[in-house]
Amino acid sequence: MPSEAGTAPCVILCGPQMGENIGACARAMKNCGLSDLRLVDPRDGWPNPAANAMAAHAEDIVEAATVFDTLEEAVADLTYTYATTARGRDQVKPVFTARGFATDARARSTKGQRLGLLFGREREGLWNSEISLSSAMITVPLNPGNTSLNIGQAVLLVGYEWWTAADETPASVLEASGAAPASQHMLDNFLNRLVADLSDRSFLAIPEKRERMIRNVRNIFQRNDLTENEINTLHGIFSFLKGQGGPR
Amino acid sequence: MPSEAGTAPCVILCGPQMGENIGACARAMKNCGLSDLRLVDPRDGWPNPAANAMAAHAEDIVEAATVFDTLEEAVADLTYTYATTARGRDQVKPVFTARGFATDARARSTKGQRLGLLFGREREGLWNSEISLSSAMITVPLNPGNTSLNIGQAVLLVGYEWWTAADETPASVLEASGAAPASQHMLDNFLNRLVADLSDRSFLAIPEKRERMIRNVRNIFQRNDLTENEINTLHGIFSFLKGQGGPR
Repeated sequence: MPSEAGTAPCVILCGPQMGENIGACARAMKNCGLSDLRLVDPRDGWPNPAANAMAAHAEDIVEAATVFDTLEEAVADLTYTYATTARGRDQVKPVFTARGFATDARARSTKGQRLGLLFGREREGLWNSEISLSSAMITVPLNPGNTSLNIGQAVLLVGYEWWTAADETPASVLEASGAAPASQHMLDNFLNRLVADLSDRSFLAIPEKRERMIRNVRNIFQRNDLTENEINTLHGIFSFLKGQGGPR
Repeated sequence: MPSEAGTAPCVILCGPQMGENIGACARAMKNCGLSDLRLVDPRDGWPNPAANAMAAHAEDIVEAATVFDTLEEAVADLTYTYATTARGRDQVKPVFTARGFATDARARSTKGQRLGLLFGREREGLWNSEISLSSAMITVPLNPGNTSLNIGQAVLLVGYEWWTAADETPASVLEASGAAPASQHMLDNFLNRLVADLSDRSFLAIPEKRERMIRNVRNIFQRNDLTENEINTLHGIFSFLKGQGGPR
C-alpha cells in the first residue's frame, strides 16, 4: 500500500477525441491512485456522457475533471511535467522508462513538487509544440513489433508504475486463507505413518532403493508448505485407501 | 530488448465473451512479446470478426489462436500455470505480484518450462475449479479503491512485466537525437563570454554578490547537458541581444 507522502501527478489529456477513451483513462487512473484529470480542448466538448459510461468505478474522476483551452494553462501550476511518447522525438530532453519515471516522480513528489503527465491524441500523439512544454519524456519499453497503445492503456501502464513504486506487496506469498501452516512435527508424523504403511505392504522392500525412495516421498510433501487441514486430509485419504486395500 | 532465451508464456482466456475483448488481449500480447493465444469455450464461437477488428497490429495472433472445449485440454502440454485473480481466493497456492510472476516465469522459461497465464471471463473472473488447475496465482497490486481491470488491461499489465523483466532500456537517458554533446571547453567559452558581457554592462557590479551570481549563472547552463548546437544557439541569442541593446 503506497504511502500518502506527496501528491500524485495529474493526468493531462491533450486534444482527446472519443469520450470513451477519456472514461477509460479515468478508470485506469483510479486503478493507480491518480485523481486529478485535466482535459485540453476535448474534441466533443465537456461534459461528455460517453466518458461517464466508460469510467466504471471512476465516475468521480470524470465529474471532477477540469477543462482548459490550452496546454499552457493546464500546466501553469505544475513544477515538472512528463510527456508520454511511443517513439523518440527530435527534442533534447531526458527520456524515462515508465519505471524510471516512477522513481523520479516519487522523489520529486515527496519534495513537494507538483507533477503532470501529458498524453496525446488518439492517432497523432502529442504535438512537438506540446512536448516542448514538458520537462521530460516517458517512453514505455514494449515489443518493437507493436508499441502502439491506446491512451487508456498508456495511462494504465504509467500509472501502474507510479502505484507500484510505493507498493510493498511481497513478490510472492503463499495464500493460505488463514489456514494454519502445519508444524514439522505434524508433517513428520504423517510421513512416518506413510513410510510404515508402505513398508508393511512391501512397497519399500528393495533395501538398496529404500532410503532414496523414502527421501523422494518426503520431498513430495516437504516442499509444499502444507497446512494443518491439508495434513489431516492426507491422513484421511491414506486411512481410506488402506481400508479399501483390504484388512491389515 | 529482451533476450530470446526461453519460451514466452501462452495466454489462456477462459470463457471469453465479447470478441472485442479477445482482440484487445491479442493486441496487448503483441505489445509484450507474447504470441500463443488459447481460447477455452468462447461464448460467441470462433473465428469472431469482432476480435480481428479490435486486434489492430495483432491480427496474426488472433488468426493463430487455438480453441479448446475445456481448460484441462488447454493446459495439458504446460508445466506451470499462473491464474490471474483480482482478489484473494480460498485456495492454498502461491500468490505472485505481476512483477514477482515475471521474475519467476523468466527463470522457469530459461529452464525450458512451458508456461501458461489464465485469465477469467469478463465479470466473474476465473472459477475456483479453474484456479485449482493452476500452479500459482497472480494478483496485480492496484489501488484497493478500484482493482477492476478488463481482461485486455489485465493481459497488458501482466505481459508488460514479462516484457520488462528482460528489458534493458536505461531508466533515464538524455534524448539528443544524435546531436553532439558540448564539451566543457565549449561551455566555458560561452560562460566566460556571458560573464564578460555582463561585467561590461554593470550587471555584476556589486563585488560582494559577484562570485555568487557568476556561480548561479554557471549552474543554470552547466546542469543542462547542452549540445554543441544549443551552445551555438545561445551564442547567437546573446550576440543578437547585444546588438539590440545598443552599441558597445
